[in-house]
Amino acid sequence: MYKLWIANKNYSSWSLRPWVLLKVLQIPFEENLCLFENGKSSHEKFSRFSPTGLVPCLIDENQTIWDSLAICEYVAEDYPQVWPKERKARAWARSASAEMHSGFSALRQQCPMDGTHNSPLNNISIELQTDLNRLQKLWQDGLNQFGGPWLAGSEFTAVDAFFAPVAFRIRSYHLPVNPAAKQWVDRILVLPAMKEWHEAGLQEPYIEH
Amino acid sequence: MYKLWIANKNYSSWSLRPWVLLKVLQIPFEENLCLFENGKSSHEKFSRFSPTGLVPCLIDENQTIWDSLAICEYVAEDYPQVWPKERKARAWARSASAEMHSGFSALRQQCPMDGTHNSPLNNISIELQTDLNRLQKLWQDGLNQFGGPWLAGSEFTAVDAFFAPVAFRIRSYHLPVNPAAKQWVDRILVLPAMKEWHEAGLQEPYIEH
Repeated sequence: MYKLWIANKNYSSWSLRPWVLLKVLQIPFEENLCLFENGKSSHEKFSRFSPTGLVPCLIDENQTIWDSLAICEYVAEDYPQVWPKERKARAWARSASAEMHSGFSALRQQCPMDGTHNSPLNNISIELQTDLNRLQKLWQDGLNQFGGPWLAGSEFTAVDAFFAPVAFRIRSYHLPVNPAAKQWVDRILVLPAMKEWHEAGLQEPYIEH
Repeated sequence: MYKLWIANKNYSSWSLRPWVLLKVLQIPFEENLCLFENGKSSHEKFSRFSPTGLVPCLIDENQTIWDSLAICEYVAEDYPQVWPKERKARAWARSASAEMHSGFSALRQQCPMDGTHNSPLNNISIELQTDLNRLQKLWQDGLNQFGGPWLAGSEFTAVDAFFAPVAFRIRSYHLPVNPAAKQWVDRILVLPAMKEWHEAGLQEPYIEH
């Protein structure tokens, strides 16, 4: 069985991506939680299982896969439903996921995922607004092209998992988004897996202030 | 036939990745060069063909794939030799490529790819040294595990393409690396495709100072 190393559910947005994917697709895995402590990145602690000292990290027997996108591709070889069935939707989903993987840095830095946070931002910077504009255009494009209700068609796939932390951020910071985007956010936030993750985070011992 | 949009061969390290992959694997494609000009990112110009206003961008009939890693996965569906044949090597290659896709930021910022540059760095910052250390450990790991001479085994695959711009940087900035790393750098730099890219860059009209 896959073993998935993750960090704090309140804060580790990269951990959430493969976790929620496996949960929603009902792919069996063992969760290994290794907490950040006192604001430290715990690089040394994480280096015991991850070659970069970062999470998430998937172990499958004697094979280590140490990046969220590589984990999706690895799991997709066993479970093709990780990506959309149709080639056009699959190419779109991979492009959008890869864009998230290396982009949206203002959103990531200015609105870090924090399950305990619930208040509006005082100020939306130009960079953040640019990210929000792009995000809405991207989602709209996927929803229009592939007919929804998920980003790349009728099934929840890795591209929804890749944007799952953004749904938490939009809620936590009350970020203004258009109705189509809001609808996708509302849809993903009521998934049992997303609720389970959020509630488990609130029970964790380490809370940042 | 695939149409690959790229930018200046002197500077666009992300463009080099899919370009050198397609060239080395002898996969037919049409190159579309769209130059950055006067230090501008040319976002508006690039937005005509790329939804993010960034390159590289692959067009296959009416399908647009707008990220380097997504391009590799898309092409791999037509040409499986993009990734190593053996599953273990393939998982390693994808993890390493994804690590490059979102990481090594000190190396990328402090040693930007520049085909016209050839002089040592005055100072290697702690962050850059950390990236160089990780890079050497990663390459050594791949070379040891899969037997070389390429990073994930006997064939040139997407993971070599992902680190191809790093080979140019190591040469341009005279970065100190261990003999195993140096050997891989020397091997990739003599590939006809790498020479062709470098020489074409030197002929480009726009040179940064």
